Amino acid sequence: MIHVIQNIYPKLLLYSYMTKDALLETAKRIAPFIHRTPVLSSTQINKIAKTNIFFKCENFQKMGAFKMRGAANAIMNLSAQQKQNGVVTHSSGNFAQAVSLSAQMSGIKAYIVMPSTAPLVKQEAVLGYGGEITICPPTIEERELAANKIVSETGATFLHPSNDLDVILGNATSSMELLEEQNDLDYVLTPVGGGGLVAGTALAVQHFGNGCKTIGGEPFEVDDAFRSLESGKIEFNETTDTIADGLRTNLGDINFPIIQKHVEQIIRVTEYEIIAAMRLIWERLKIIVEPSCAVPFAAVLKETAKFQDKKIGIIISGGNVDLGKLPF
Amino acid sequence: MIHVIQNIYPKLLLYSYMTKDALLETAKRIAPFIHRTPVLSSTQINKIAKTNIFFKCENFQKMGAFKMRGAANAIMNLSAQQKQNGVVTHSSGNFAQAVSLSAQMSGIKAYIVMPSTAPLVKQEAVLGYGGEITICPPTIEERELAANKIVSETGATFLHPSNDLDVILGNATSSMELLEEQNDLDYVLTPVGGGGLVAGTALAVQHFGNGCKTIGGEPFEVDDAFRSLESGKIEFNETTDTIADGLRTNLGDINFPIIQKHVEQIIRVTEYEIIAAMRLIWERLKIIVEPSCAVPFAAVLKETAKFQDKKIGIIISGGNVDLGKLPF
Repeated sequence: MIHVIQNIYPKLLLYSYMTKDALLETAKRIAPFIHRTPVLSSTQINKIAKTNIFFKCENFQKMGAFKMRGAANAIMNLSAQQKQNGVVTHSSGNFAQAVSLSAQMSGIKAYIVMPSTAPLVKQEAVLGYGGEITICPPTIEERELAANKIVSETGATFLHPSNDLDVILGNATSSMELLEEQNDLDYVLTPVGGGGLVAGTALAVQHFGNGCKTIGGEPFEVDDAFRSLESGKIEFNETTDTIADGLRTNLGDINFPIIQKHVEQIIRVTEYEIIAAMRLIWERLKIIVEPSCAVPFAAVLKETAKFQDKKIGIIISGGNVDLGKLPF
Repeated sequence: MIHVIQNIYPKLLLYSYMTKDALLETAKRIAPFIHRTPVLSSTQINKIAKTNIFFKCENFQKMGAFKMRGAANAIMNLSAQQKQNGVVTHSSGNFAQAVSLSAQMSGIKAYIVMPSTAPLVKQEAVLGYGGEITICPPTIEERELAANKIVSETGATFLHPSNDLDVILGNATSSMELLEEQNDLDYVLTPVGGGGLVAGTALAVQHFGNGCKTIGGEPFEVDDAFRSLESGKIEFNETTDTIADGLRTNLGDINFPIIQKHVEQIIRVTEYEIIAAMRLIWERLKIIVEPSCAVPFAAVLKETAKFQDKKIGIIISGGNVDLGKLPF
């Protein structure tokens, strides 16, 4: 019951749970709740990027994003008592849908706090997966307040989208599958938002890679992770003016030490580079990806000398895009 | 050498070549030139359509469309002498790319006649696959004139995109793969443009289906195939005002008899229904498909009573879309 230990034991002890066995058990645990997603390549893209890229397509994951893996693992790890009381999270995006669907599949309740500004289509998606929505004013304080209120009234367990060890372990399973299929990768790249995906990826790469390294991609506009690695403490963003709307959040005290220890580098890219990379994926791979997914690919296109003729895995984190608001 | 016989023997004899063995040989012949494309399903789409749909994703085919199958087969079936002189076609779309790439892979020359109105991006794609472009005025007469001139000057063999038995047999292999994976389909649906895909599909369904039937989808705006089946002769379109730009062409004397004999029905859909169906595929399957591909899916969404709780294959014919000109 990692989830319980997390609240009792000091942080250092936590890391003893990030073993190879813990990852293998996680993969087994969540298998009935997730799709094993395909890995795609494109001769044309490899020609353009002068390297060999294996795209791990979490946009084809249930509910359309890798978040399903972490949410499913966190919910599976609840005690019987915790399950009875349900779960709560505040999110306007993919994690809300992932928690709702995982809870529905486990037959437990999901309380989702959403800001009043959340698009109707996202509210409908949560309702479609059986989530119970509470609307609150659109500030982070109000969201936390509303979530805390639900916790104290219902006894539901709060789930954090990225700063939670179970979520991180669940996220790691995507790269485990990728490395199982392609065990000679030199690098695995992911976008960096709240840090849950890059931290999970780094754990998988450490245990299952062969001399493989983990690299994060981040927009210049929200380069908190880049600055955090430089300063050695968690930094925050003053603006969130990026098209990569999944990457506006900050690192947390659980994932940051993992990132510090196991992530080689964070490469920053411009908004223009993100949009061009996204378009290239749409046009050549014929798949719908979120702007956030294009960030690590943009990093590969930017640092051609570093990546030339290497074998590179990229986690395509999700495909939930508002088709009415495309940048091209 | 079906290709040669086609020019000598009466048409009825041709059909003796459309045997199960001919299809199996075709599949074997073109295997090194094509991808075996994936079959995708979506729980959400099945819920909405109240049926079970298996999407055969030719948008992931080499050069992005099923046309690769027919072009590869036609080129493989040329004699050594014909190969030496190369091939010629006139097309501004997917067939031009398919012929160029197939010719390049076979080490032979491809002369592509394109109208002066063909978008630069399509010209670049043809050049990228090694095709030699001749630009002509944008009328069908000028296109045929330019192609005939190349034939008489170079001895190259003219390839028709849809009214060619080798092309039809090549196209059939997509449904053969689909039926191999899912052998209990009640229907296979395809879009209907020049008739080469629906004719090939009907042959595959006849030989490899179990009580399965072939149905075509067509826009009301270019319903020549629907009217041809009603009147018993090849009808033409007076307008071509549809978003499904791959479906503006007419049936031919080789594919029409096959369609008459083996296609159960052609279902017509409105432009609005095409766009809505296309959006649903993009949003739920997370794949990029051409408007033409959405036509048979729109037909399934329209005739819910007919298709309820059935098992349905849909050939997603291609994914080459101009992202700058999306209808949403």
